[in-house]
Amino acid sequence: MQKQLAIGYQQSCGISRARLFRTMQKLSGYNERLFRVVTEKDYGAREASLCLPDDLHILRESEYVRSRVANNELKYVILVGIGGSSLGTEALYNASFGHYDAIDPTRKPQLIVLDTIDPLFAKKLSAFLQSHVHHPDDFVVNVVSKSGGTMETQLNMQWLLQQLQRRFKCIEQRLVITTDADSRLATYAKQRGMHLLTIPKQVGGRFSVFSTVGLFPLSLLGIDTRELRAGARDMRNKCLRTPITKNIAALSASVLFLQRRAGKFIHDTFLFAPALESLGKWYRQLLAESIGKKPSAGITPTISIGSTDLHSIAQLTFAGPQHTMTTFVTHGERRASLTAIENGVQRAYTHAKLPFMEIVLPNSSPYSLGQFLQFKMLEVMYLGHLFGINAFNQPAVELYKKEVRKILAK
Amino acid sequence: MQKQLAIGYQQSCGISRARLFRTMQKLSGYNERLFRVVTEKDYGAREASLCLPDDLHILRESEYVRSRVANNELKYVILVGIGGSSLGTEALYNASFGHYDAIDPTRKPQLIVLDTIDPLFAKKLSAFLQSHVHHPDDFVVNVVSKSGGTMETQLNMQWLLQQLQRRFKCIEQRLVITTDADSRLATYAKQRGMHLLTIPKQVGGRFSVFSTVGLFPLSLLGIDTRELRAGARDMRNKCLRTPITKNIAALSASVLFLQRRAGKFIHDTFLFAPALESLGKWYRQLLAESIGKKPSAGITPTISIGSTDLHSIAQLTFAGPQHTMTTFVTHGERRASLTAIENGVQRAYTHAKLPFMEIVLPNSSPYSLGQFLQFKMLEVMYLGHLFGINAFNQPAVELYKKEVRKILAK
Repeated sequence: MQKQLAIGYQQSCGISRARLFRTMQKLSGYNERLFRVVTEKDYGAREASLCLPDDLHILRESEYVRSRVANNELKYVILVGIGGSSLGTEALYNASFGHYDAIDPTRKPQLIVLDTIDPLFAKKLSAFLQSHVHHPDDFVVNVVSKSGGTMETQLNMQWLLQQLQRRFKCIEQRLVITTDADSRLATYAKQRGMHLLTIPKQVGGRFSVFSTVGLFPLSLLGIDTRELRAGARDMRNKCLRTPITKNIAALSASVLFLQRRAGKFIHDTFLFAPALESLGKWYRQLLAESIGKKPSAGITPTISIGSTDLHSIAQLTFAGPQHTMTTFVTHGERRASLTAIENGVQRAYTHAKLPFMEIVLPNSSPYSLGQFLQFKMLEVMYLGHLFGINAFNQPAVELYKKEVRKILAK
Repeated sequence: MQKQLAIGYQQSCGISRARLFRTMQKLSGYNERLFRVVTEKDYGAREASLCLPDDLHILRESEYVRSRVANNELKYVILVGIGGSSLGTEALYNASFGHYDAIDPTRKPQLIVLDTIDPLFAKKLSAFLQSHVHHPDDFVVNVVSKSGGTMETQLNMQWLLQQLQRRFKCIEQRLVITTDADSRLATYAKQRGMHLLTIPKQVGGRFSVFSTVGLFPLSLLGIDTRELRAGARDMRNKCLRTPITKNIAALSASVLFLQRRAGKFIHDTFLFAPALESLGKWYRQLLAESIGKKPSAGITPTISIGSTDLHSIAQLTFAGPQHTMTTFVTHGERRASLTAIENGVQRAYTHAKLPFMEIVLPNSSPYSLGQFLQFKMLEVMYLGHLFGINAFNQPAVELYKKEVRKILAK
């Protein structure tokens, strides 16, 4: 039995145990729905992402394409994608290796992400590819776009293809396209003979890390995706199969919900391990985009790193307007001195009656990280149910996209 | 004349021009004080950091030590410091070069920062130094701690010294200590024959980027610190010498103040250039620690990157509780496609009556970055005055430090 992620919640934080339990119990019907989605493998449900951790088809699809492009010479996995298409992969890669790439430059393969549009990045990447990539086996390009039409991804893909086509023949075989089965990008990939991986229709970007979106690049990068899936599966099963009042994701969601009602508009995820910063960013997107649906629901996620941000964030949280609910994420493998700081901070929060939870991640193994990601996706689904909103769409994004299209049409 | 940083503010954001001007006018007496601090070079004042951009002594001190340790072989500047001791240097290094280090690995010297305590980072750094550092000329270690007693910095310094002393003689001459003149660390540095740089007593960490804290490592890293200072000086003089209603830092402070009064508890700095992320983190510390002093004053800073975070943050900001005031930071040198996205986003914010400002950074030159940093430090001083708080101390930090000391004493 692998070490399990644990959660702690201070009863001193102004919410009675009885009230907390009543809120958790409100989730019991929804939890039954989630259980049904999983047992029936209901890919038509909004919560379809819960079926991914034991979907063998998706694992095999990813591993098959991996077997076609992997080799001992592979140096760079170039991921072209933005938001939900890249944040999960970056989170897992950085937590496992990437945070240390600058001081571990010979470890290969490395992940390079092309997300937004940055002319200087493009210029430097062009020179880098010229000097570091000499054979098609040196790299794989993975283009990830659920809709297939993401503007940044399209532009970056075209630019990158131009760069590579000049130098290598048959570049198509080094490209893997991950997209919806019915997108124009999928058609394009098939016409050009590129490898194609598909994403189940109902699985949105921010819930897609256990689909081909995450599994393929992560397995290529040397992360044990079977362990990742096992962590996710165990967490999911533990949450769905235990009584709701013992469900740790329901606990986390209920605390966030009640604290939000009590005026804690901000949820600070305070990670006491710098390598987990990208994990925080993944969660930031998940919480902001899923729950920001009406004035009484949105919670603003912030990400802090311990002990780097401690001075500034502690000063603000202790003395400022007390709008913040904190989740400390502590890492099982750390030095005693950092443990002393963590514990001292938590004691001071308790004395000041500042609400917080603690999530203890046993280590940075794929199994632990898989647990964490699944825990947070469940927490956000439960939160959506408590707030009475749809956690799976993003209607307001259209407000600015419409304006961008108008400008580009001119 | 170099290109100047510009600021835009939408009058449609619910604050009348008359009210904004009245608030700005409240800053006129304080602005006279700042003017006096600068003209009298008043290093006894809380706002002493304003004297730094034309302090020739500090420039010469930094350049003298630089001349003692710099050489053509220098590969790594290892900065041991946390919070105010490192965030400014990281911000400028990353905006200038560092963001691209992974795809520009041969450019030297590189910055390596040891801030918090991370056993895995230490382990990997140890192996890295073993394989990449062969001669004392390959590196400089800069230990930065204002008080000299920062726990993380002390532990990291001791660890690093052990690593290096094993392999190299006379390691002391590759160490530069930056601290208060009367700290125990200063005494230690002198006793061991290490290079010593001092910080003016009244200049706190988060306002210290133009002191030896920033100037020395940045000049070693190849950043033109004279240009940086010129940008800061020009911005400072422009703000202090023009009528208060034309002062752009006073405008920014007044908008943030009035929006905070109107319930905008969160200030999102939305940087449309990924290389500026560390600049955002530097500002995050500055705003949180300076203004988080009483319940009616604190503003929670968040940092977003365009277009990466656009979906999630736009969804939350448009549809959520409308607690957010946004400052877009746009970069003068970018592709047309990103400009279209920026403009589309701003139009949608305007239609939705979401308050925002725009800061246009002409480019990433040291001059532009110097302007930006000085602009933000002035903005925060003005904000402190409007809120009637001391922006220069951090009393609540003691609340958790006390608890940490109790734990460590056991």
